[in-house]
Amino acid sequence: MPEISVTRRVRATPFTNRVNAAGVKAYTVYNHMLLPALFSTPEEDYRHLKNAVQIWDVSCERQVEITGPDAARLVQLMTPRDLTRQKVGQCTYSPTVDATGRILNDPVTTKLADDHYWVSVADSDVILFAKGLAIGANLQVTVSEPDIHPLAIQGPKAFDLAAHVFGDHVRDIGFFRFGYVEFGGRQHVIARSGYSTQGGFEVYLNGTDLGEPMWDALMEAGRPWDVRAGGPNLIERVEGGLLSYGSDMTTEHSPYEAGLGRYCHPDRISCVGSAALMDEAENGPARIVRSIAIDGKPMSNPHIPVALFDGDKWVGQITSAVFSPDYQTNVALGMVEKSHWEPGTELTVMAPDGRRNAVIREKPFSA
Amino acid sequence: MPEISVTRRVRATPFTNRVNAAGVKAYTVYNHMLLPALFSTPEEDYRHLKNAVQIWDVSCERQVEITGPDAARLVQLMTPRDLTRQKVGQCTYSPTVDATGRILNDPVTTKLADDHYWVSVADSDVILFAKGLAIGANLQVTVSEPDIHPLAIQGPKAFDLAAHVFGDHVRDIGFFRFGYVEFGGRQHVIARSGYSTQGGFEVYLNGTDLGEPMWDALMEAGRPWDVRAGGPNLIERVEGGLLSYGSDMTTEHSPYEAGLGRYCHPDRISCVGSAALMDEAENGPARIVRSIAIDGKPMSNPHIPVALFDGDKWVGQITSAVFSPDYQTNVALGMVEKSHWEPGTELTVMAPDGRRNAVIREKPFSA
Repeated sequence: MPEISVTRRVRATPFTNRVNAAGVKAYTVYNHMLLPALFSTPEEDYRHLKNAVQIWDVSCERQVEITGPDAARLVQLMTPRDLTRQKVGQCTYSPTVDATGRILNDPVTTKLADDHYWVSVADSDVILFAKGLAIGANLQVTVSEPDIHPLAIQGPKAFDLAAHVFGDHVRDIGFFRFGYVEFGGRQHVIARSGYSTQGGFEVYLNGTDLGEPMWDALMEAGRPWDVRAGGPNLIERVEGGLLSYGSDMTTEHSPYEAGLGRYCHPDRISCVGSAALMDEAENGPARIVRSIAIDGKPMSNPHIPVALFDGDKWVGQITSAVFSPDYQTNVALGMVEKSHWEPGTELTVMAPDGRRNAVIREKPFSA
Repeated sequence: MPEISVTRRVRATPFTNRVNAAGVKAYTVYNHMLLPALFSTPEEDYRHLKNAVQIWDVSCERQVEITGPDAARLVQLMTPRDLTRQKVGQCTYSPTVDATGRILNDPVTTKLADDHYWVSVADSDVILFAKGLAIGANLQVTVSEPDIHPLAIQGPKAFDLAAHVFGDHVRDIGFFRFGYVEFGGRQHVIARSGYSTQGGFEVYLNGTDLGEPMWDALMEAGRPWDVRAGGPNLIERVEGGLLSYGSDMTTEHSPYEAGLGRYCHPDRISCVGSAALMDEAENGPARIVRSIAIDGKPMSNPHIPVALFDGDKWVGQITSAVFSPDYQTNVALGMVEKSHWEPGTELTVMAPDGRRNAVIREKPFSA
């Protein structure tokens, strides 16, 4: 692959110097920021993530900070998920849709206080949607991007490492709940969350200047558990059925098609797109994201679009696919038409290197 | 530098196969899309751009299509530039600001019809701002991203090449005006514009399927003029004083600070941020973008932030800098405080490799 060209427009993070020193081999760009994508081989990064603990520079999960008397009203407008009973201390997965009910992002909304939220966004500028809505509807809010940079601690040893560095109280934080830790004389939010299914935390670094000290403290303390620099791993995330906005669901799709219907309650709240979503909820979606097993040797170009067929009939699209060492098959995610989405359905994939057999699964591989 | 990691989320363009075949050495990511950044060396790409003609895949200049009875009202809300007298056929540089008058993007707004606009955006998701504003203010518009992909023809031979492929009428298109060309049985917008100061056009490819045929036609016809694949060139753009949103101006800055005050008329139109902009217009900005000459040998890491000093006093920030073979100095852009922005002011740059002398210029190097 070609190199990545870096300018000021593609922002470095508080951890970039350390990521470079750790020997990053490939970056991607996410929310105008560098996201480390590869350190060894995809398979070695994967094996290590499943066995040990990794530190991920996920600063690119930018926070949209919303404060003011209308803050709760704005965050609710932005998602069909019912946030009316969200408590302070809770992180809530909350897809954002437009007026036609199509997905603009799938952020996590963190409630810091009744009039203070962070919306932790996937790869699109939700801050512009929030600003536009607030201006158009004349809401009394301030929308800004704070000097906050998530650093993930992921893997089976994440709990031991985080407890060692930040204190045993972090073990008591519930799933998708957050607490606070002290580091460098400052308080930082720490949430039990992360973009893997191996468990762990995301520390919301509070202030660029503490980035390298925090990275170093975690790396130093993590030696007994073989801590390494890492990043979201394609194999592990597809095994776990974790969707990537922009890959597995886009602005072409509704939350129902993305399998996120259980998070949508457009009938009981005031949100953008509610009419379109209620229509779709009544009839059900026309297609849905499924985990899919694809036979044969490792697929060579996981990002090349490949279609799903029943005989000669197009019935869907593979959106992510990669060979899994643990499951010894190509694990995939794809958007499958209603006529063929039943688990167990046998289909054909038109891969760049020829036809392969595929089977629709009921659940993700590692679920 | 590390490689770039490509997934479906980082979108390929209708021209990516041809760009890869042309031997692209580095990509950047712009609006979630691949933007070719390097083919030979920066200096060779630069020399060729100034002497011949290049084809640039700038599909990443995404179009926000706005149609409907309130289309003109929405595009005017999004910019302090007065668009009330914009004619069909005109492309207008139109900075977008938020409620506080800070820049969200610096797009070109193209008027296709009285109720039909394309906003051709720099690197941020203006489509989300437009959707948010339209929903919040309950405007009767449709906001979408069409299957349109700009391909730039840039360089002194651009006119000859475009006329050869599309017909001599393209020579009559005025600066920042557009016309139409026929190719592959379809009409495509062609504008006399582009992100260089060498002259040329941007063809707004109408339909992904015609991308490779159009690329091939231009490359085949361009042989007599030594046509090559290229992309925006840092040296050429800094010489010409072309700003890059995200590098030389960000969401921290106002259009006045970015030197775009002549495009702002918040007093005579209804636009977002007008109150903040009128305040700033009255007092004048506190800092401004300037072209700056920096002495000494080529600066090694043009993207590393370097500060401007008057003795020991911080007075600004270099935002883009690179050595120019033609001017035999480091050419730069920077944001300079009011106390030191007068042309001819001599300052000191704290570069990673030591102190250098710098001089504020009145105009861009090639102006």
